[in-house]
Amino acid sequence: MNDGPPSPRITVKRLPKRAAYDRDTINAILDEGLICHVGFVVDGQPFVIPTIHVRIGECVYLHGSPASRMLEALRAGAAVCITVTLLDGLVLARSAFHHSMNYRSVVLFGAAAAVEEPERKREVLQALAEHIIPGRWDEVRQPSPDELRRTLVLCIPIDEASAKIRTGPPLDDDEDYELPVWAGVLPLRLTASTPLADPRLRPGTEVPRYVRDYQRPSRTPEA
Amino acid sequence: MNDGPPSPRITVKRLPKRAAYDRDTINAILDEGLICHVGFVVDGQPFVIPTIHVRIGECVYLHGSPASRMLEALRAGAAVCITVTLLDGLVLARSAFHHSMNYRSVVLFGAAAAVEEPERKREVLQALAEHIIPGRWDEVRQPSPDELRRTLVLCIPIDEASAKIRTGPPLDDDEDYELPVWAGVLPLRLTASTPLADPRLRPGTEVPRYVRDYQRPSRTPEA
Repeated sequence: MNDGPPSPRITVKRLPKRAAYDRDTINAILDEGLICHVGFVVDGQPFVIPTIHVRIGECVYLHGSPASRMLEALRAGAAVCITVTLLDGLVLARSAFHHSMNYRSVVLFGAAAAVEEPERKREVLQALAEHIIPGRWDEVRQPSPDELRRTLVLCIPIDEASAKIRTGPPLDDDEDYELPVWAGVLPLRLTASTPLADPRLRPGTEVPRYVRDYQRPSRTPEA
Repeated sequence: MNDGPPSPRITVKRLPKRAAYDRDTINAILDEGLICHVGFVVDGQPFVIPTIHVRIGECVYLHGSPASRMLEALRAGAAVCITVTLLDGLVLARSAFHHSMNYRSVVLFGAAAAVEEPERKREVLQALAEHIIPGRWDEVRQPSPDELRRTLVLCIPIDEASAKIRTGPPLDDDEDYELPVWAGVLPLRLTASTPLADPRLRPGTEVPRYVRDYQRPSRTPEA
């Protein structure tokens, strides 16, 4: 990623005090998010499609069927925007106007290139599994050469990226602090509940610990 | 919304059995999602920005500062794509290849128009508050005429929309069902935790019930 100042098009215009451009902040958000939203343009029409991703070093990787309209457009060189958003809480102010959300988001631009080498594809898919649910990869049947051929893997170098973050309590107008209205933050997070066994599960197969104790990496404490 | 067959550009190409075009399915997803991702194009570059939305009847409404780059572009007539994604669970198959996610998403296209009339703006903002946290609007200080002027409200008619949904257990290759690997679904949902009072809260102000008991509308049972 460019170490100079952010480019104009990636620079956060509104509420610049919420912006961050440093690598660690951006990577932490990309790494916590389970899914991203991918924007691309076909015949002037923007499309926004959710998919899973993984970051390895300086790249975000996407994967899927070679028949995917999105991956096809990206592989053909379409400009792409990838956005990862983590919702951290509802910000409840004393006035309707100052209600907000606590969130962390990353917006990045890049140009996709296909990963062709089967062993590198396998490494990316392994990293993707570890990103979503650590411990799973080593237990399951590994991809066959044919499955690897049927999986398109794209690398999007993180050329330009910015993060936008809101944390903390509501900010009301001075005169509203006297109002007898509860104000504060209602924290939100993505949580797992009881695993549902496949109806065709072999009897006696136990739920693995990495499934039973699943949780996403820790969130900002002040969320 | 058009009642005829879906247009080619909104038609789900990959895994068409996961697609839905009926109004009730689409509305339920739009109404459960707290945020959407908005795609638009500036100088050929797609942007994807998260924001909150509310559906009223045949329209999705967005709002924000008139200085917002996104709202500015949309008001100026930029083609827009709005996507709402609900993550319902991790689908853990016996093979790496057949891992998936259970999700419900809506993709819609439309063209934005500004809501100018102050009373209609107020109604939209009220609906938005009720969408996010029912009960809040009636308790807080209402928007002043000046705050309404400083809020841009856009209506995007739902001209073309499709939903894509995956539910249920993993689908493995026949020969893999014999593997001694746990398989099933780990349900995920957005949950609220203990409310954090504003440090400047008036002493003795109780947490309202609609905050303490907050949860999103019910999700698909088979998630």
